[in-house]
Amino acid sequence: MALPMRNNLKHFPRFIQKLNSPEAPRSGRVFSGIQPTGVPHLGNYLGALENWVSLQDQYPSVLYSIVDLHSITQPQDPTQLKSNILDMAASLLACGINPEKAILFQQSQVSEHAELSWILGCLTSMPRLRHLPQWKMKSKVKNEGSVGLYTYPVLQAADILLYRSTHVPVGEDQVQHLELAQDLARIFNNRYGELFPEPCALLSTRKVKSLRDASAKMSKSDPQTMATISVTDTPDDIALKIRRAVTDFTSEVTFDPETRPGVSNLVNIHAAVAMISVQEAVSQARGLDTGAYKKLVSEAVIQRLTPIREEIERLRSDRAHLERVLAQGTCRARELAAPVLAEVRRRVGFC
Amino acid sequence: MALPMRNNLKHFPRFIQKLNSPEAPRSGRVFSGIQPTGVPHLGNYLGALENWVSLQDQYPSVLYSIVDLHSITQPQDPTQLKSNILDMAASLLACGINPEKAILFQQSQVSEHAELSWILGCLTSMPRLRHLPQWKMKSKVKNEGSVGLYTYPVLQAADILLYRSTHVPVGEDQVQHLELAQDLARIFNNRYGELFPEPCALLSTRKVKSLRDASAKMSKSDPQTMATISVTDTPDDIALKIRRAVTDFTSEVTFDPETRPGVSNLVNIHAAVAMISVQEAVSQARGLDTGAYKKLVSEAVIQRLTPIREEIERLRSDRAHLERVLAQGTCRARELAAPVLAEVRRRVGFC
Repeated sequence: MALPMRNNLKHFPRFIQKLNSPEAPRSGRVFSGIQPTGVPHLGNYLGALENWVSLQDQYPSVLYSIVDLHSITQPQDPTQLKSNILDMAASLLACGINPEKAILFQQSQVSEHAELSWILGCLTSMPRLRHLPQWKMKSKVKNEGSVGLYTYPVLQAADILLYRSTHVPVGEDQVQHLELAQDLARIFNNRYGELFPEPCALLSTRKVKSLRDASAKMSKSDPQTMATISVTDTPDDIALKIRRAVTDFTSEVTFDPETRPGVSNLVNIHAAVAMISVQEAVSQARGLDTGAYKKLVSEAVIQRLTPIREEIERLRSDRAHLERVLAQGTCRARELAAPVLAEVRRRVGFC
Repeated sequence: MALPMRNNLKHFPRFIQKLNSPEAPRSGRVFSGIQPTGVPHLGNYLGALENWVSLQDQYPSVLYSIVDLHSITQPQDPTQLKSNILDMAASLLACGINPEKAILFQQSQVSEHAELSWILGCLTSMPRLRHLPQWKMKSKVKNEGSVGLYTYPVLQAADILLYRSTHVPVGEDQVQHLELAQDLARIFNNRYGELFPEPCALLSTRKVKSLRDASAKMSKSDPQTMATISVTDTPDDIALKIRRAVTDFTSEVTFDPETRPGVSNLVNIHAAVAMISVQEAVSQARGLDTGAYKKLVSEAVIQRLTPIREEIERLRSDRAHLERVLAQGTCRARELAAPVLAEVRRRVGFC
C-alpha cells in the first residue's frame, strides 16, 4: 500500500540526502531495519536491500536489524514469526548482505532497544505521534490500534540513536519517522548534553509498484497474489505475473508514470534489475509491443533473481548457520549498544 | 493530591483482598514499587511501607522495586534523581525492609522490565489507557503529557508480571492500574498459553491526609511545607507541623472523617504510629482539648519516627553500602526475571 505523504518532501529539507548523490559523505555509521515478513519481494529488494548492499562498502560501520519488536505491533503467529525471522536472515544474506562488513542482528535480542525506547518515550509528547504514517495508516484499518503501534516511531528512534547512527537509508514513507528520531536526538542533547548525532536520511526514491495497480506500492500483504513478485518466485511464476501485469491499450512502450503508470512500472523494474537507465530500457523496448516487452522484462527479472532464489534455498536448509550469523551479529550490536545505554542511564540519573 | 476514584471500589470485586484480612493466603510472590521521591513522608510510611515490612514476614517471596523508570515520566533533575534513589533505598532499609527477606532493587537496572513492557504494549489498546488515573490526573495539569506518562500503567503491569507475582500491595488509587495488569495477564495467557498468574491486590485502606487540607492525601509535592511530615523531620519540625495542623472550632476530640476531617486525620495518625485502634486513640484523648491532643500526637509520631530518622542518617553516610545492597537486589531480581522473559520471547516467536 502506498503511504500518502501528508506533506511534500520539500517540507523536510533537513538532513536528507538522495542515495548515491555525489555529495554523500563516506564516514559515520549506517543503521536500517526491516520487518521479518519472511522472504522479501522485488520492491523490498530494489527499493531498499540493493542500497543496503552498496552502503556496506561505502561506510565504515553498518548495522542492519531484523526488527521483530516492530513486527508484533500487528498480530503475529509465533511459529510463523520465528520462521519469518530466519527466512529474512537467509534472504538478506542471499541478496548480498555480508556479515563481515555489516552487523546483521535481530532487534529483540538486544535489550537496549526497548530500554532506550522507554526513556525516549518520556521525552515525546503524545500529540507528536498522532499524525505519523504508522498510526494514520494502520490504525484506520482497525479503527483503534495497540499502544505498540502508536509508539512504534519512538522505538524506531531508539533503534537508530542507540548506535549513535549518522545515516539511515529510508523510503519516502519513513521520512516523518526519521524526523522524530532527529527531534529526539536534539531534545535529549539539549536536556542531558550532546550525545546523539542527528541522523541523516539517505533517501531511496526508487518505487516499485503493484503489478495489478500501479498507484499502489508493491506489498507483501497485497491480497492479490499476482500483484507482488517474491524474490523466491520461480521463473514460471515471474513470467506469469509479469504477463498479467496491468498496463494500458497503447502497445508502444514509453516511460510516463503519470499517464501510463502500469507500463512505466515495468520500465522501472526492467531498468533496475538490468542495472541500466530508464532511457536505455525504453530504447531496448523500441519496436516491441507491450506483450513482447513483458517477455524481455521477465527474462531480466528472472536473470537477476535466480541466483538469489537459489542461495536462499541453500541457506534455508542450514538453520544452524543462520542462527550462528544472527547470534554473532547480536554480540557485536550489544558491544556497541551497551556503552551508549550506560551513558544514557548515567545522564538521566539512574546511576 | 487525592485521586478521585471514577468508580467505587464495589466495581472492582476481582482479586482484591484487604491487607491482613484473615482469609489472606500466605503463599505466592509479592511485588510492589515505589518512586524514588527521596525520603518518604509519613503517608508513604503508614499507608504502604509499614505493610511492606509485614509482608516480607508473611510471604515466601517478596520484591520491592525503586521504580526509577516510572519517575522519568515527569521531568527530573538527574543529580537529584540519583540522590533520591539512594535516599529511598536508605529509607526503605531504615523503615524495616530486610534485604535478606525481600529483594530490594532499582527497576532501571533490570532491562527485562522495559522489554516486557514493549511486548505488553502490543497487547494493549490505546483507549484502554485513556481513563486511567495516571493520565487523567497528571496530564490535566500540563494539558498533554508524554508517551511515557500515557503508557506508564503498561510498564507497571510488566513490573508485576515479570516476576509472575501473585500479590500486589496497593492503595485505592492504584486499583485500576492493577486491573490492567490482571487484564494483560489474561490476554497474554489466552494468546500464548498460561504463563502469568492474575495478580491479586492487597488493598491498603489507611489514608494519611495533608495536615493543611484533610480532603487531600499527604503528598511530597504539596507546595505547603506544613502539610507533609517527612520521616526525617526533626522532633521540632514534627511538633510545629502538628501544632499548625488545620482542625476545627470544636475543642473535643472525636473521630468523624466526614464532618471533622482535620481532627480525624490526627486520630488516624495517632492510632497508626502508636499501633492502637482508633477507638483507643479517641479514648486516650478524653479530657484533652485539640491543642493538648496535638502534643500527644506529636510525641507519638516523634517516638515512632526518631529511630527511623537516625537510621536513615547513618545509612546515608555509607553510600557504598547502599549501592551494594541495590546491586545484590538487582542480581537476584534478574535471576527471577531472565527465565520469565526468555519464555515470553519464545512464546511470542522471537526465538
